[in-house]
Amino acid sequence: MADVFLALLHHPVLDKNGQIVTTAVTNIDIHDIARSAATYGVRQFFVVTPVRALRALSAKIIEHWETGFGSTYNATRKEALARVAIEPDLDAVLVTIERAVGRQPIIVATSARPAAGATPFAELRQRLAGAADPHLLLLGTGWGLAPAVLARAHLRLEPIHGPTDYNHLSVRSAAAIILDRLYGAR
Amino acid sequence: MADVFLALLHHPVLDKNGQIVTTAVTNIDIHDIARSAATYGVRQFFVVTPVRALRALSAKIIEHWETGFGSTYNATRKEALARVAIEPDLDAVLVTIERAVGRQPIIVATSARPAAGATPFAELRQRLAGAADPHLLLLGTGWGLAPAVLARAHLRLEPIHGPTDYNHLSVRSAAAIILDRLYGAR
Repeated sequence: MADVFLALLHHPVLDKNGQIVTTAVTNIDIHDIARSAATYGVRQFFVVTPVRALRALSAKIIEHWETGFGSTYNATRKEALARVAIEPDLDAVLVTIERAVGRQPIIVATSARPAAGATPFAELRQRLAGAADPHLLLLGTGWGLAPAVLARAHLRLEPIHGPTDYNHLSVRSAAAIILDRLYGAR
Repeated sequence: MADVFLALLHHPVLDKNGQIVTTAVTNIDIHDIARSAATYGVRQFFVVTPVRALRALSAKIIEHWETGFGSTYNATRKEALARVAIEPDLDAVLVTIERAVGRQPIIVATSARPAAGATPFAELRQRLAGAADPHLLLLGTGWGLAPAVLARAHLRLEPIHGPTDYNHLSVRSAAAIILDRLYGAR
C-alpha cells in the first residue's frame, strides 16, 4: 500500500473574495486532523505556514501534548500528535517526504470546486491500495488552495458531495471524510 | 426518505475515567456539525445541554451568524446555523421532533466502542433510504454517551473503523464521517 502524507496549507490560499491570503493556524485543526490521520494510517501530517511565529506556536501546542503536561493527561492526543510535522511551504514538505521515503510523492490536490478531469474517490482509493509511489494529499484552509498550488498537483480529487447543494464543510470535516472515503473499512 | 435529526449531547456523557459528567458547549462543535448537517440534509441539529448559561451562549453564537454582523459577513455559516436548535435534554429533543413531524423518532446511538448487535453502516443507510419514520442520531461529547442514554436508543450504530487500531476521532470528525457514510454520494 502506498505511503500517504497529508498537508494543511495556510498559504497560498484564497479568501472569500478570491484574493490570495495567509490564514492563521488553529489549534483545533491540528488536533482534529491529527486524530483523523492516526485513524486512517496517514504517515505524516504537515501543518504548513510561512509565518515563523505560527510555526513556533504550533510546535508549542504539539510539545505540550507530546512531552509536557498533556502527555500524561491524554495519551490519545499524544499518539495522534506524534505524526504532526511543521513546515514553511510545499517545497519543504516535498523535501521532507523525499528524505523519509527516498522519492517525491504524487501530489493530490483537494477542492470543494468541481473541475474537469478530477479523479473520483473510488479511483484514487483503488490507486492508493495498489501503488508503490508515496502520495501527498493537499488541503487548503480559508476558501481553498490557490491556483498556483492546484497547478503543481499531479491529480485533483473530486469534491465531496452530499445529497444537497450545500458544499461548505469545515476543512476538519472534509479531511475526515476524504480519509474515510479513501481508507475506511467497507 | 426518512427525516433525519442529529443531537449532540453534553450530558449525561462519560469522562476518561468513566464518570458521568457535563461537558462544555464549544463554538467549533456547533459550526462544524451544522455545516456537515447542511451538507448531508439533516433536518435539524440539536445542541443539548442542561446548563442554562451554555444554552444562552449557544443562542448568542447562532444569533450572531443568523441575524447579527456575521449574517452579512459569511452567508454559508448563516445557512448552516439556521438548522441548529438548543434543548436542555433528550426528552425535550423528542418533544420538539414530535411537534415537527407528528411522531417520535427512532433513536440511533453512536459510540466508538463495539457492541454486540450494533447496526452496520450499510444497513442503516439502506433503512434510512426506505423508511418513513423519522430517525434521531445521538452523538456524545467527552468520552461518549452514558449507558443510560445508550439504553434508550432503539438502534446502536457500529463504530467507525479505519485501517489502524486508533479510534479517537473528534466528535466533529465522527459526525462528518457518519453522515457521509449514511448519505454521501456513492
